[in-house]
Amino acid sequence: MRAVDIIIKKRHGESLDEKEIRFFIEGYVKGEIPDYQVSALLMAIFFQGMSAQETAALTQAMLDSGERMDLSGIPGPFIDKHSTGGVGDKISLPLAPIVAACGVRVPMMSGRALGHTGGTLDKLESIPGYITDLEPAEFRKGLLEEGFAMTGQTAHIVPADKKLYALRDVTGTIESIPLITASILSKKVAEGAEGIVFDVKCGSGAFMKGYDDAKALAKSLVATGKKMGKKVVAVLTNMSQPLGYKVGNFLEIEEALDCLEGKGPKDVMELTYWLGAWMLVLGGKAKDVSEGKSLCEEAIESKAALNLFYRNVVRQGGNLEEMQKKRGSWRSEYSMEIRADKDGYIASIDALKIGLAGVYLGVGRNRTEDSVSPTAGFIFDKKSGYHVSKGERIATLFGKDSQSLEAAFPLALNAISIENTAPSISSLILEEITVS
Amino acid sequence: MRAVDIIIKKRHGESLDEKEIRFFIEGYVKGEIPDYQVSALLMAIFFQGMSAQETAALTQAMLDSGERMDLSGIPGPFIDKHSTGGVGDKISLPLAPIVAACGVRVPMMSGRALGHTGGTLDKLESIPGYITDLEPAEFRKGLLEEGFAMTGQTAHIVPADKKLYALRDVTGTIESIPLITASILSKKVAEGAEGIVFDVKCGSGAFMKGYDDAKALAKSLVATGKKMGKKVVAVLTNMSQPLGYKVGNFLEIEEALDCLEGKGPKDVMELTYWLGAWMLVLGGKAKDVSEGKSLCEEAIESKAALNLFYRNVVRQGGNLEEMQKKRGSWRSEYSMEIRADKDGYIASIDALKIGLAGVYLGVGRNRTEDSVSPTAGFIFDKKSGYHVSKGERIATLFGKDSQSLEAAFPLALNAISIENTAPSISSLILEEITVS
Repeated sequence: MRAVDIIIKKRHGESLDEKEIRFFIEGYVKGEIPDYQVSALLMAIFFQGMSAQETAALTQAMLDSGERMDLSGIPGPFIDKHSTGGVGDKISLPLAPIVAACGVRVPMMSGRALGHTGGTLDKLESIPGYITDLEPAEFRKGLLEEGFAMTGQTAHIVPADKKLYALRDVTGTIESIPLITASILSKKVAEGAEGIVFDVKCGSGAFMKGYDDAKALAKSLVATGKKMGKKVVAVLTNMSQPLGYKVGNFLEIEEALDCLEGKGPKDVMELTYWLGAWMLVLGGKAKDVSEGKSLCEEAIESKAALNLFYRNVVRQGGNLEEMQKKRGSWRSEYSMEIRADKDGYIASIDALKIGLAGVYLGVGRNRTEDSVSPTAGFIFDKKSGYHVSKGERIATLFGKDSQSLEAAFPLALNAISIENTAPSISSLILEEITVS
Repeated sequence: MRAVDIIIKKRHGESLDEKEIRFFIEGYVKGEIPDYQVSALLMAIFFQGMSAQETAALTQAMLDSGERMDLSGIPGPFIDKHSTGGVGDKISLPLAPIVAACGVRVPMMSGRALGHTGGTLDKLESIPGYITDLEPAEFRKGLLEEGFAMTGQTAHIVPADKKLYALRDVTGTIESIPLITASILSKKVAEGAEGIVFDVKCGSGAFMKGYDDAKALAKSLVATGKKMGKKVVAVLTNMSQPLGYKVGNFLEIEEALDCLEGKGPKDVMELTYWLGAWMLVLGGKAKDVSEGKSLCEEAIESKAALNLFYRNVVRQGGNLEEMQKKRGSWRSEYSMEIRADKDGYIASIDALKIGLAGVYLGVGRNRTEDSVSPTAGFIFDKKSGYHVSKGERIATLFGKDSQSLEAAFPLALNAISIENTAPSISSLILEEITVS
């Protein structure tokens, strides 16, 4: 078997078989197939695509490049959620304890902020003392006792993905649906999930901005996940404006606590319940989404989810007292306000622009080696569809320093548009994909 | 300027500008842009193509990566011919002295056999003593005194092409019309040609087997050559059966001598005159192809071309006496005959199969480091369209050893088909492309 023949086969639009895909991935990880042949294959895949069968073979080969989380001895079901990334998306924080409170274990491996999108690990680490690089034994213990634990990926989990992603990043081959699918799925399967609910965002702040692209990704995730023998569902959701009223790291912890206390913003709660309900359905704890939602609501009302979250914070080294003390007051001293320049309705708050402004502020990062600020971010007073009077405050920005604040301000200002008439607000939940 | 942005731009199907193309090629040659980004761009070019404007910018950037042949002080015009490669294609050997005899200088840099196609350098080197790696001064002297000289490419000529070609070979990006165009044109411009006649082959033995692909390449060569300010014409010719009656290295020298003595095979002479006539038209020595042909015929009849060839052989170290002595008798001792298994008409002699059988025999090579045999090859008694009786000899094969002969024989046998009715023979010259 020669690498160049496999490249040419895919270039011709033919399907690769399991052996060919495995030959390429194993050869790449071992250093036997060079980067330049892999990047040529990736570009050919970008243009010619892959069937669900091929994508599943790719996912499996990537998965087999590393270790899997050992969940033996812990009773399931193990269901996780994966979001394709957004702005103000703190859903994982209330979601994991809610679902765990309903008897479904959530072995959550999360990522960091990159580009305009936030990262769950960065948010959690804004809690004083909280650590996210758990030893496997500690992760298992959290999963057993609280029903969920939050960790980053170790180097042993899907090393093929790390190598491939770094190559895709510099060769213009990120935006390929089968490659995205295999990257996401391989990690979720490696962490031990038996079922996965995918939150596939679309809109300006999403990775897949267009509806058709997002839907194609959702279908690919569902089709490939099923081929891998997993229970899967994908929910297409709107990421044209940030989720909730707070965007940042500790700011989003605050909003997550609000959610767990039953006073979360409407959009965040709607999405949390929807995704949670599906996780319960996949985990066999609810017969349908409606029952799943009721169970999620009960977990909030009973404070069961909140208590699990507290226990998780303590387990992962976080200082509960400090967290509560800082809540509502831990703010960067560098702040600026955006006020309405006229009477009218907020027509849109562009999530991409807010996310990019957030990178300046210190919420996110451009390069993986950059650090983030716990107190940087945005607090919105109003969101799309609300009426504002001239001079009324719409948002407050907090920057890691005055320079970053100055850089972020015009971008954030430009993200918000005010019109004379009330805009039509599109739904948050756009579509559910359960079959491919 | 970032390499990845240029890759993505081309991936989107946008045109690259001259600066972007130069940035990539210069960066690659200097080792600043890694192979894996170049191979991704090459694959994106494979799928998205390049305009003549882009292809000319690519050609220019590749050209500027190395030196050009210094032809200063030698009066022109300098016109060359380039063939996309075939089987039994010895046209360059009679063509260069014919055209030189008519007052057009031919600064010919040729290649070696690779895969099923033969190479002019290998054929010339079968003449005892003949050398093809001329010093520039010697090349200039030959060009000045005989009007042509035959050399291989030096490492200083278009180094970008060498690096790119090696990468294309292992990344499945050979078959891209703009990349082929830039590779061919950059070398021809570097050798100093002011005008180029392209012999674009199509048919089984050609690089571009299909008519549409061959025509697209011809159009690209003409369009890009014109953008580079060169006089160019492309002739689409039939390579479904080998050219002439002899295929090999010294065997083809023999046939070239036949041509120069006015007794060459009809097909070889037809193509030689056609290409030569166009070279004279481009060089301003003939007002049209018809006049060009008459001049070429005169160069044969007067023996002027034959004498120039002899002088070139002597200049390049060849032993004329040895060459003449070996002519007609220098044959490998390992030979086999193919005889008709029934009465009928030869319907086809598949050029690709003959070329591949030739690699076994020792005419060509699979890898650039393999050596070739001077005496290996084929002598055909009959070609397509001829009637044969059962048991009549059609061809004799000569192998470098008995093993190679055994391996080549079934392939060669399979290349020849005999039918009951006479086949329709398609023209050798299929089309001329003078405008893009």
